[in-house]
Amino acid sequence: MRPLSLNTVTVKEAWGLAECIEGCARHGIPGISPWRDVLAAMGVEAAARQIRDAGLTVSGLCRGGMFPAADAAGRAAAIEDNRRAIAEAHAIGAACLVMVCGGLPPGSRDLPGARQMVADGLAAILPEARAAGVTLALEPLHPMTCADRSVLSTLAQALDLCDALGSGTGVAVDAYHVWWDPVLAANMARAGSRIAGLHICDWLVPTTDLVFDRGMPGDGVIDLGGFQAMAEAAGYAGLVEVELLSRRWWSEDPDHVLRIMKERHAAIG
Amino acid sequence: MRPLSLNTVTVKEAWGLAECIEGCARHGIPGISPWRDVLAAMGVEAAARQIRDAGLTVSGLCRGGMFPAADAAGRAAAIEDNRRAIAEAHAIGAACLVMVCGGLPPGSRDLPGARQMVADGLAAILPEARAAGVTLALEPLHPMTCADRSVLSTLAQALDLCDALGSGTGVAVDAYHVWWDPVLAANMARAGSRIAGLHICDWLVPTTDLVFDRGMPGDGVIDLGGFQAMAEAAGYAGLVEVELLSRRWWSEDPDHVLRIMKERHAAIG
Repeated sequence: MRPLSLNTVTVKEAWGLAECIEGCARHGIPGISPWRDVLAAMGVEAAARQIRDAGLTVSGLCRGGMFPAADAAGRAAAIEDNRRAIAEAHAIGAACLVMVCGGLPPGSRDLPGARQMVADGLAAILPEARAAGVTLALEPLHPMTCADRSVLSTLAQALDLCDALGSGTGVAVDAYHVWWDPVLAANMARAGSRIAGLHICDWLVPTTDLVFDRGMPGDGVIDLGGFQAMAEAAGYAGLVEVELLSRRWWSEDPDHVLRIMKERHAAIG
Repeated sequence: MRPLSLNTVTVKEAWGLAECIEGCARHGIPGISPWRDVLAAMGVEAAARQIRDAGLTVSGLCRGGMFPAADAAGRAAAIEDNRRAIAEAHAIGAACLVMVCGGLPPGSRDLPGARQMVADGLAAILPEARAAGVTLALEPLHPMTCADRSVLSTLAQALDLCDALGSGTGVAVDAYHVWWDPVLAANMARAGSRIAGLHICDWLVPTTDLVFDRGMPGDGVIDLGGFQAMAEAAGYAGLVEVELLSRRWWSEDPDHVLRIMKERHAAIG
């Protein structure tokens, strides 16, 4: 069984980072993946120390990216913000910085142009990432987020970008975003050692919201065992992170959420 | 400018097929694409006659498909229903039968298995389709519909199926379903003369429903001019069909909807 990691967004309505660190320790969850807002609220140095003291592995920092912007000033600001994210990821010893690359600039219909902005943004920050030893984990997001969150839509597309950018890049593969992909197995094998993060949650039927209706592993239709097996066959030996954006689960007691997470993760095997 | 076609679902709350036929004639829209429910309500022979009398081209019949089922009896029933759909498409002189292939069987997580059921179902009905001269237009649906509507998710996947099945098959390409695809242009070129239907509507930001919140062309972020140009470059010279599943537009006067459709289609060029 791959070790489990808690992505802090899973319990974001009730817990800050300190509670997440304590919660992981209390429930015997060996990994954590903070979002930058809770990291900033706690303070990077204090967070780094408490994560280390709790003996947790940091499976990733969420998130860099969001490169496309309507003008050059906006794109430069995004790049500066990504540089800060790299420094934060380094400070907390994160295995990677998860890159949610961004959607179309407001008012734009130029999808190839937005994709070029993503490639340019990644190229701009890659020297700092390499110097810091922080892997940029390109995360393809579900195509339903293409307009407003990520023009990076498939694992194949992410790997093409990794090929173009070279060392210091990898992929974060989230079952929710890629489970439907008819060429997923081939691209997981192609990814190989470039799988820098593995995320799970489930696809509910029906899904009632494009962002905040993800399912707890086991409650939906994704073959998560098969997904994890594909990653393992490709050589992945890291943590499995549960990243659940769900109004339903945000309304629950976080200790209950962590217990269910552990049970479901154990059931995947 | 490619000639326009009205998919009847666009005004389904207010108009039956007879009103759609009259509406197309009144607005100078040269094509129509009925759904099977309104066709059945009018009667196939009456519909065929009135469509012919109105001088309309039938850009497609919606829809065949829905092959995956939990048991063999269910799959056999789906195949029988598809045979009736082929006969109806032939009777009204449809350019193609649009295939919405179906999602996972209830309770299943076996996506490769469901995809095999689709391939098997298509192979089963292909002899009848060929005999009737009805092209089976495989329509890749947006990945957000993979669980419950279509395990056929990309144009590349649809073309792989066409390659395997051979003559009598083609693709229906709907901008809404494929606009995000990083390899769309290459696969439109690959499709070439196999493009049997071209559908447009728009992706709204935000999109508030996974099925019934499609946008009127021009109201969203899809580069529909570029989309149409890709199809034309691939050799497509047929009608452009507006298929709009939208609670917002269903609440409008259908004559208003048709006027707006025409304006927006003209603006695409």
